[in-house]
Amino acid sequence: MSSSAPLPDLDRLCIHTITTKSWDVETAAKKFSAAGVKGITVWRDAYAGRDITATGQMLRDEGLSIVSTCRGGFFPGATDADRQAAIDDNRRAIEEAHQLGAPLVVLVCGAVPGQPLVESRQQILDGIAAVLPDCEATGVKLGIEPLHPMYADSRSAVNTLGQANDMCEQLKSSHVGVAADVYHLWWDPALETEIARCGKLGALFSFHVCDWRSPTIDFLNDRGLMGEGVIDIRQIRGWVEAAGFKGFNEVEVFSNRLWAMDQDEYLKLIIESYYQHT
Amino acid sequence: MSSSAPLPDLDRLCIHTITTKSWDVETAAKKFSAAGVKGITVWRDAYAGRDITATGQMLRDEGLSIVSTCRGGFFPGATDADRQAAIDDNRRAIEEAHQLGAPLVVLVCGAVPGQPLVESRQQILDGIAAVLPDCEATGVKLGIEPLHPMYADSRSAVNTLGQANDMCEQLKSSHVGVAADVYHLWWDPALETEIARCGKLGALFSFHVCDWRSPTIDFLNDRGLMGEGVIDIRQIRGWVEAAGFKGFNEVEVFSNRLWAMDQDEYLKLIIESYYQHT
Repeated sequence: MSSSAPLPDLDRLCIHTITTKSWDVETAAKKFSAAGVKGITVWRDAYAGRDITATGQMLRDEGLSIVSTCRGGFFPGATDADRQAAIDDNRRAIEEAHQLGAPLVVLVCGAVPGQPLVESRQQILDGIAAVLPDCEATGVKLGIEPLHPMYADSRSAVNTLGQANDMCEQLKSSHVGVAADVYHLWWDPALETEIARCGKLGALFSFHVCDWRSPTIDFLNDRGLMGEGVIDIRQIRGWVEAAGFKGFNEVEVFSNRLWAMDQDEYLKLIIESYYQHT
Repeated sequence: MSSSAPLPDLDRLCIHTITTKSWDVETAAKKFSAAGVKGITVWRDAYAGRDITATGQMLRDEGLSIVSTCRGGFFPGATDADRQAAIDDNRRAIEEAHQLGAPLVVLVCGAVPGQPLVESRQQILDGIAAVLPDCEATGVKLGIEPLHPMYADSRSAVNTLGQANDMCEQLKSSHVGVAADVYHLWWDPALETEIARCGKLGALFSFHVCDWRSPTIDFLNDRGLMGEGVIDIRQIRGWVEAAGFKGFNEVEVFSNRLWAMDQDEYLKLIIESYYQHT
């Protein structure tokens, strides 16, 4: 098992806009930049109603790398019309990422409660294939994010890194890879192996960090900051780096508890936990 | 994909005492038996403070097959003393099952928050190996129950059927097999394959049913009755039967909502959902 040394600086620290969601994108950009953060992943709500191209320029002017946008996906649907609407929305997401200057759209692939998972999985493959021409035209890539099995009913029928790797192999496109998030994947006995495989496929596009609190009290909004939970994040970062990943470590935390804090204090905690536990 | 026909009768219906936990074991036995239920899995709290041998006789006198007891396990520990205490407790559980006349103890294998999963997994293997002489002496078997990955922090470091099968192969004992529960396993893309493998290993010892509600609002006590959620239980029963399983379909539901119902009405619902959705 490889494990990495502590991170020496903030050069690879990226924060998702949702992590400090009460800040609008202009405020987040200024605060992140002033704190020495170098990357930002922009959720689509953060640029909604704005001139997207100008927003991208504003972020770059603050010295931030735009790492990705969140999120596309949700391809499965009960009807042809639902699935077509999802494809249309993903095409919009790709175009928006292109305007923003983001190289990647993260995919929460989707699931329909009660629909067989095998069917949803096929619809996800079909949906991604349908939008690949948009990726090729714009250069924007897609990152399949396998979600924790506790979301298999309604959020994603892609629940392990092994599955995501299989999909990359099937789709055979340099525009499709994986967004690996420790929160979703940490429990998997095959994780180290599948990270290595993902690296060999050239498909390890992004790496998300946060922590799994014990106990966790909410299915969505009780993630921990790194070090607040049970995940050995540094070990997993070691595996990811051993697989050739050189990108950002993206802090993506949904937490009612942390959102209720003073957000300037919270940003300091993020940086502290980045040095100590990432 | 195989799928089974509806169940023609209640001959293979087993109910866990915890499913109707407000009933003591004597009441549960009478009610189950009067309703035509043929099997019972007895949680250890249900016989606590009782003459265990006499309790077993009472259950058989009601015409019930004692399918298993719940639960042993929780082998991982931070200290030698913790792990020895767990081994001692599992030896007691095996002896109790022997007195009760139960052929099987179901194992919730355990995990220690913050302890590396690989370490917990090894401690589980070591713990099971340590109690095997008790199994051989009494004839009582152990069923490793892989738990949903959302319990990997504190309840079980065994989170897929594949892992449980691997452990059976490593332990090489006819006394060690698997308790497969649809709630924990339904999301797994490898489920059909691993059920078949488990059958080939001769390790498919028991089959638990309930449902995954969408949304689920509590990490422990919001299970659904069969048909209330998203799991295709009949399909999974088909896979289990195709793998050679001929045992009971055990209804194990933890639900604050259903525990709050009139329990006689609830028992009728269980039987209805058994016919319609199992």
